[in-house]
Amino acid sequence: MADYDLAVRGGQVATGFGTVRCDIGVKDGRIVALAERIADAARVIEAGGLLVLPGGVDSHCHIEEPQPGGGANEESFATASAAAFAGGTTSVVCFIPQWKGHGVWDRYVDYRARAAKGMLDHSFHQIISDPTDAVMDDEVPRVVAEGVRSLKVFLTYEPLHLSDAQYLRVLTKARELGCLVTVHCENYDAINWRTAELLKHGMTAPKYHAWARPPVVEREATHRAIALAELVDQPIQVFHVSCAEAAEEIARAQARGVKVWGETCPQYVALTAADMDRPGFEGAKFMCSPAPRSQEEHARIWEMIRRGTLDVISSDHCAFSYEGDKGKRQNGADAVFRDIPNGIPGFAARLPVIFSEGVSKGRITLDDFVRLTSTNPARLMGLAPRKGMIAVGADADLALWDPRKKVTITNALMQHAIDYTPYEGLEVTGWPVATIRRGDVVMRDGKVQAEPGTGRFLPRAPYDLIRPRGVVPDGFDPAPPAGR
Amino acid sequence: MADYDLAVRGGQVATGFGTVRCDIGVKDGRIVALAERIADAARVIEAGGLLVLPGGVDSHCHIEEPQPGGGANEESFATASAAAFAGGTTSVVCFIPQWKGHGVWDRYVDYRARAAKGMLDHSFHQIISDPTDAVMDDEVPRVVAEGVRSLKVFLTYEPLHLSDAQYLRVLTKARELGCLVTVHCENYDAINWRTAELLKHGMTAPKYHAWARPPVVEREATHRAIALAELVDQPIQVFHVSCAEAAEEIARAQARGVKVWGETCPQYVALTAADMDRPGFEGAKFMCSPAPRSQEEHARIWEMIRRGTLDVISSDHCAFSYEGDKGKRQNGADAVFRDIPNGIPGFAARLPVIFSEGVSKGRITLDDFVRLTSTNPARLMGLAPRKGMIAVGADADLALWDPRKKVTITNALMQHAIDYTPYEGLEVTGWPVATIRRGDVVMRDGKVQAEPGTGRFLPRAPYDLIRPRGVVPDGFDPAPPAGR
Amino acid sequence: MADYDLAVRGGQVATGFGTVRCDIGVKDGRIVALAERIADAARVIEAGGLLVLPGGVDSHCHIEEPQPGGGANEESFATASAAAFAGGTTSVVCFIPQWKGHGVWDRYVDYRARAAKGMLDHSFHQIISDPTDAVMDDEVPRVVAEGVRSLKVFLTYEPLHLSDAQYLRVLTKARELGCLVTVHCENYDAINWRTAELLKHGMTAPKYHAWARPPVVEREATHRAIALAELVDQPIQVFHVSCAEAAEEIARAQARGVKVWGETCPQYVALTAADMDRPGFEGAKFMCSPAPRSQEEHARIWEMIRRGTLDVISSDHCAFSYEGDKGKRQNGADAVFRDIPNGIPGFAARLPVIFSEGVSKGRITLDDFVRLTSTNPARLMGLAPRKGMIAVGADADLALWDPRKKVTITNALMQHAIDYTPYEGLEVTGWPVATIRRGDVVMRDGKVQAEPGTGRFLPRAPYDLIRPRGVVPDGFDPAPPAGR
Amino acid sequence: MADYDLAVRGGQVATGFGTVRCDIGVKDGRIVALAERIADAARVIEAGGLLVLPGGVDSHCHIEEPQPGGGANEESFATASAAAFAGGTTSVVCFIPQWKGHGVWDRYVDYRARAAKGMLDHSFHQIISDPTDAVMDDEVPRVVAEGVRSLKVFLTYEPLHLSDAQYLRVLTKARELGCLVTVHCENYDAINWRTAELLKHGMTAPKYHAWARPPVVEREATHRAIALAELVDQPIQVFHVSCAEAAEEIARAQARGVKVWGETCPQYVALTAADMDRPGFEGAKFMCSPAPRSQEEHARIWEMIRRGTLDVISSDHCAFSYEGDKGKRQNGADAVFRDIPNGIPGFAARLPVIFSEGVSKGRITLDDFVRLTSTNPARLMGLAPRKGMIAVGADADLALWDPRKKVTITNALMQHAIDYTPYEGLEVTGWPVATIRRGDVVMRDGKVQAEPGTGRFLPRAPYDLIRPRGVVPDGFDPAPPAGR
Repeated sequence: MADYDLAVRGGQVATGFGTVRCDIGVKDGRIVALAERIADAARVIEAGGLLVLPGGVDSHCHIEEPQPGGGANEESFATASAAAFAGGTTSVVCFIPQWKGHGVWDRYVDYRARAAKGMLDHSFHQIISDPTDAVMDDEVPRVVAEGVRSLKVFLTYEPLHLSDAQYLRVLTKARELGCLVTVHCENYDAINWRTAELLKHGMTAPKYHAWARPPVVEREATHRAIALAELVDQPIQVFHVSCAEAAEEIARAQARGVKVWGETCPQYVALTAADMDRPGFEGAKFMCSPAPRSQEEHARIWEMIRRGTLDVISSDHCAFSYEGDKGKRQNGADAVFRDIPNGIPGFAARLPVIFSEGVSKGRITLDDFVRLTSTNPARLMGLAPRKGMIAVGADADLALWDPRKKVTITNALMQHAIDYTPYEGLEVTGWPVATIRRGDVVMRDGKVQAEPGTGRFLPRAPYDLIRPRGVVPDGFDPAPPAGR
Repeated sequence: MADYDLAVRGGQVATGFGTVRCDIGVKDGRIVALAERIADAARVIEAGGLLVLPGGVDSHCHIEEPQPGGGANEESFATASAAAFAGGTTSVVCFIPQWKGHGVWDRYVDYRARAAKGMLDHSFHQIISDPTDAVMDDEVPRVVAEGVRSLKVFLTYEPLHLSDAQYLRVLTKARELGCLVTVHCENYDAINWRTAELLKHGMTAPKYHAWARPPVVEREATHRAIALAELVDQPIQVFHVSCAEAAEEIARAQARGVKVWGETCPQYVALTAADMDRPGFEGAKFMCSPAPRSQEEHARIWEMIRRGTLDVISSDHCAFSYEGDKGKRQNGADAVFRDIPNGIPGFAARLPVIFSEGVSKGRITLDDFVRLTSTNPARLMGLAPRKGMIAVGADADLALWDPRKKVTITNALMQHAIDYTPYEGLEVTGWPVATIRRGDVVMRDGKVQAEPGTGRFLPRAPYDLIRPRGVVPDGFDPAPPAGR
Repeated sequence: MADYDLAVRGGQVATGFGTVRCDIGVKDGRIVALAERIADAARVIEAGGLLVLPGGVDSHCHIEEPQPGGGANEESFATASAAAFAGGTTSVVCFIPQWKGHGVWDRYVDYRARAAKGMLDHSFHQIISDPTDAVMDDEVPRVVAEGVRSLKVFLTYEPLHLSDAQYLRVLTKARELGCLVTVHCENYDAINWRTAELLKHGMTAPKYHAWARPPVVEREATHRAIALAELVDQPIQVFHVSCAEAAEEIARAQARGVKVWGETCPQYVALTAADMDRPGFEGAKFMCSPAPRSQEEHARIWEMIRRGTLDVISSDHCAFSYEGDKGKRQNGADAVFRDIPNGIPGFAARLPVIFSEGVSKGRITLDDFVRLTSTNPARLMGLAPRKGMIAVGADADLALWDPRKKVTITNALMQHAIDYTPYEGLEVTGWPVATIRRGDVVMRDGKVQAEPGTGRFLPRAPYDLIRPRGVVPDGFDPAPPAGR
Repeated sequence: MADYDLAVRGGQVATGFGTVRCDIGVKDGRIVALAERIADAARVIEAGGLLVLPGGVDSHCHIEEPQPGGGANEESFATASAAAFAGGTTSVVCFIPQWKGHGVWDRYVDYRARAAKGMLDHSFHQIISDPTDAVMDDEVPRVVAEGVRSLKVFLTYEPLHLSDAQYLRVLTKARELGCLVTVHCENYDAINWRTAELLKHGMTAPKYHAWARPPVVEREATHRAIALAELVDQPIQVFHVSCAEAAEEIARAQARGVKVWGETCPQYVALTAADMDRPGFEGAKFMCSPAPRSQEEHARIWEMIRRGTLDVISSDHCAFSYEGDKGKRQNGADAVFRDIPNGIPGFAARLPVIFSEGVSKGRITLDDFVRLTSTNPARLMGLAPRKGMIAVGADADLALWDPRKKVTITNALMQHAIDYTPYEGLEVTGWPVATIRRGDVVMRDGKVQAEPGTGRFLPRAPYDLIRPRGVVPDGFDPAPPAGR
């Protein structure tokens, strides 16, 4: 019997500090050896001329999220898995919903069952939209005890947004339980005000989506989210930072020693507000929140990535088809921007777009790429060292990457359930030629091959960044007034 | 008949750019001449050895403010006038209340009548605590048309605080009408959360007032108030800045070109959080919001004053006696800090404390002093050039100041209705020896002599800083999304 | 006999805080009254419809500066006086040279005599280019004792530039004597290096002047000049700031409490590097140091002016004719940029260009204009309150200004000795229609009428900003190492 | 024959992203396998309970540096190797001197031969103190071609300091050749001025060393060094940053995209200026440049380390004995601080002091520690991936670390040639129990066992950070004047 179930041989293996040429030996789904030469394996994949990267970790995406009235959003765990594998991603953190007036435990149970039918390894963020006593004191601790160590809150969106008081409630409970809090930062009232003014003036086209939520709206909520987290001394991650002025608030807080991290997404370095002004109703394909900005802002976002202020790039895949039976955007040219669902598909595009715009164009290094898209999200979410790195003992999640392959993105290549991609026609340099999840080759040359139901839930234990601070109840330290 | 009703002779007259030795000729209450020698006057005041300053302008103070259930706060316009004159102040801007569920016009009419019985020249800020359609579209424009060109909002305090949506409503209307908006910046929910935690831990003493509202709470609301004003493009003044981190938000916004100004008060350079920890219940005498900070913070506030970020020093006189029939703080040692009324007296102390701590101790120049306490508030409120400067054509409001006089502050010297001063026992260098209001000597050597009913209402026309921007309704400019 | 020698009646008089309508009474060259109505004067000038401003103070200009080999630069005190009066300026601070290997006393005596033949009131900066013991310990104190309270140093230019050691010597002596130090901040070695590289590549045209001294070269020297002044605790003024990144260094230092001020010039808001690329040899007309930058930089300089970081606007008039016998720039199209003399004329253009680009275009207020061009330079140089303001007791130096008058600038209007103006053809709104110097009308409708020899030397006593700090010799305070 | 020469088994192996439990297989001095279990090795070291770290890389240290008059400094390559191994360090970058008036090639040849007698793997920085044409155009390229890819310059110290012109010469040549430039940043003239003033006042004790070079002197030179490097577009590393204000200049430049890195040393987080004031002449033991600062500054340096601004910690070992024949500090209590040699020993102390003060006290993570002391210096110097990480293909340089071991530092433990350590008596938690260099166990339980002459020279090829930019001579890009 061979020592190894699988050997990946001859590739340039990413270490996070440059690459080294070595073979990888896999047994029982885990990496058990990294060596100059691994001879004796049941199956061998030759990776000469390829980069061998840790499989992508997408820590912010929406999959098959149940809706209050029944049903779920279009992307099922099966289609999401195919799309992720097609793009070199092997693990995701997606969202358990909470609906106003409802609890979270039943949603968790239901969502666990849904996710179990897919092929992706997965963990969850628990959305909190209604932090009642019953939910926070009884149900949330049970969900957390299952290994769901992040709570997601929205500072905008009807009906999800929280008041400051509700957000403080979540921060306090997260601190007590040892969870990360992830935050969508835009000012709810300001967007409503702007939207009402725009509609009053007959400005209804998709492009006005961006007019309704300019950078100052995001900066305000970012500063507030951080300030209240400082007050409670609770770590947070700011989701989908779209502009430098919001990122600057994160940088300033980091410089004061606050535990805050910033995430961005491919749409904030590859799409612009001008895309929402394409002829006809095409602009609707680019609507997400925060809104895409400008080319100049892209340059500033790359700068913030290089400074380390933004250290995770997720997809925020949250998609709605443009046409057809399941189409959510078909309300057509008469629709006003306020009523068009927000969110764009991005599972498969995430790694190629960032590799091409980032590494191939010289804006970031390969090390940066690996950290931004795999190692950092795994670490921040408490999934490392099992996920996010190529190391002995880690799960054998790998993306075999051809850094020179040129591909023109089409929707067919994306393999998701949605009928379009906002990156249609974009030429990229660099593409995943195979994806391996726990030692199984789940994608090869674009062909996904994985059994439904093979994805595993990833329970997360308390980890260093978010560990509980002891017995003080409700997160309150009686600190002197001069401090926080 | 003499050319002049009054001549002030031989003083060092403050110009805002150093002092010059000259005489001042007054006729019909106005300065009609500044000259080396004015011989022919009906009355002559010799000011040799004294500084002649423009009378103080206190643009933030609470006087005889009616309460919802009837009555008004302790300081009547008569007592307030005496206190102001005693301290060298000749003009005030005080507050017309609005009560939840009520309009503002009747309050304006009532308050005009009350103010008319005092001796101080006066203008008002209109508080907005319930910006309903009826109030904002009908009554507020009428009040503004009377010459009340500033709207005051609170981002904290039960029941005054506004939501962001309500604050945006006020900003938008102010822009349309051509008003300044003045803002109390502390985060309501954060203070409530902290307060609940403190009380849960049995921390009820006056000193915990400061613990309940640390600087981060003020910085958050300051940033938010500015960000929303940027969005609307509406000038605001941030009231009573107590700490450098809030001031820094103002400085950053000024550097971006935002029309925002910052005010501070004597309590933020002369009182500390430690005062609230004095033995027994004495600490209650120092409770105001924001809370006094530390000696180190005082140094930083002076720095922000010298940088010009904070350019107005007001009293925020808002006082409650400590004992006796009218005493509001007598609830005694069992009281919890949350229930003790906020606010301290400061009319008469404002100029001497700032002169002594500022000019006498070398922290600011005499020019700075005059600008901070008279010229700048007059200009920002649209009262200049009638008030706030010694110039031909201006009202003859003067403070004759002895820069060498040493005085130990006692409550009796303050001449207000309140039974204590937080500055009791403070030694100051520099004191007003006479106050002249529109040519009348209303205070001499501490003795106030003015007829009730001689104060005048100061209607304010639209002025440069806040002028209406034309016909775009509701303050909305369809600007491109990259901008504000 | 009339009470007044002169009355200026009915104008809008600038106070520094808005304007007031009043008459001005003058006797013996000084303002002795400001009044609503001055009836009885020997001569009356009606100023209805005009602004009455304090005469301009140009605290940085080169006039009839003697050259080492004999002769002096083209602009004599007579021609300079005419040009200054034509443009509304009544006082100047110009430069006593020091030549390497020579002392300063003889130069002072000679220069006093030259200046006495002009019509402008004048003070001097003493240039130090060779701070030997003899000069610094013997001659400089004598010159300072005459009332020359500023020392000027260059950190670039052959043969003027000082090493850091020499600059420290000057700072230390200035601190001991109670002088301001003014500094030309560009890095000598960096410019030499860049210049050599450019010439090596055959890049010799005038436009390469700007390439040889990019903003980083100015920022470096600005930071260094400030840092060494911090070390010695000596006030300095940074001359002719051309770019925001240098200004930002000043702003940062001011925020730390360092006594540093920043000056800019019209050329840095009205000329660009592109002007040096005009066809033929025309570009030579725009060469000065630092080099003019870009339109974008102009916007940033205005912002720094509004922030108060740059608070003086001088001409840096230092001019060389383009053609003719006395022409210094005639070396023609074969000349390399390194050999073309630096400096452009600006006496008469300064006030109109700044008024038009600043006030008329809404970038600054009239108050800002008065402070930038008259009050602030007078105060910083210790000439106030005699100069720089309209106040009782001040010299009757006035510019009667028509804010609506449109003028197209031509060289003839400039009335200087130089055969060109870089502002030829520029249309300005706002123009001086009369200039009064100590009560004499020295310019009316463009016609200069003043007797040679009527200008007065303005000795400066130690003043607040720069006063000596006591007996510690050589500026050395034994401060703890953690400090400066 | 066994597959491996050596196996290190059962340790927690540092990956740079957390640790994993795995075995390490070594053959021919290199790591050839990382695996869950390595059974078949000629020699086995059991590392259960220990951390396995990459051997320390000390990229800034002075060893056996020849002196102009013959001889060399006390630490020979043999003693330095012992000290380094004792402290877990396996590679060094030390300095080839240049003496004024001399070339560099002979020095390189001589120094190569000296280093070859030691046991440490080594590379060199070439000091440039006299950049004449002959040296820069002829000899330096030859030395660089040998694999010496960093040039070291001093902006202070007699006789080493360079003028700005000389520094620009070095930057330009480094850019052409593809070298890093490392810089000692303190202002030479400012220190001389301060020193002269101190001595004039009789302030001669060791503690005045710190008074002579306050932080502003370091900040100035740091800003200048960066600005000139920006001008040339040449990467630099700022050596031994001692204070936050200098680090802030680095952070600002990094935010502008400048290629600048910052190093600090244990002395700047563990020693203070107060140490130089110990009784008698003891203070001399702590004299190095920049001078140690204060406890408050330590906290700020840690913050700058956490921000990533300072990303390398070296020893700057440069030592002189306190007493005895070879003693350099024996000039005794009469000596003035100016004449006492600068520099302190730190080879063996570096890792334990940083581990203890950093990791054990919770200021940095283990990942941070590994990067700061091994991975980052190896990468920045172009030694990675051969050095600085535990990866297949890398040299088998390892430190086996007991994170719980408590040790009180004594000079005997340091194993260097110097007769004292400034850390005498410091208790640390965490200590290296074995050091492995290319597969050889060169230290075990404090006993060093390595053959003289086994250290290898590490030639460095051009690497990414510093690669030559093509054919433009002398580093000059004709960029537009608005840019750099």
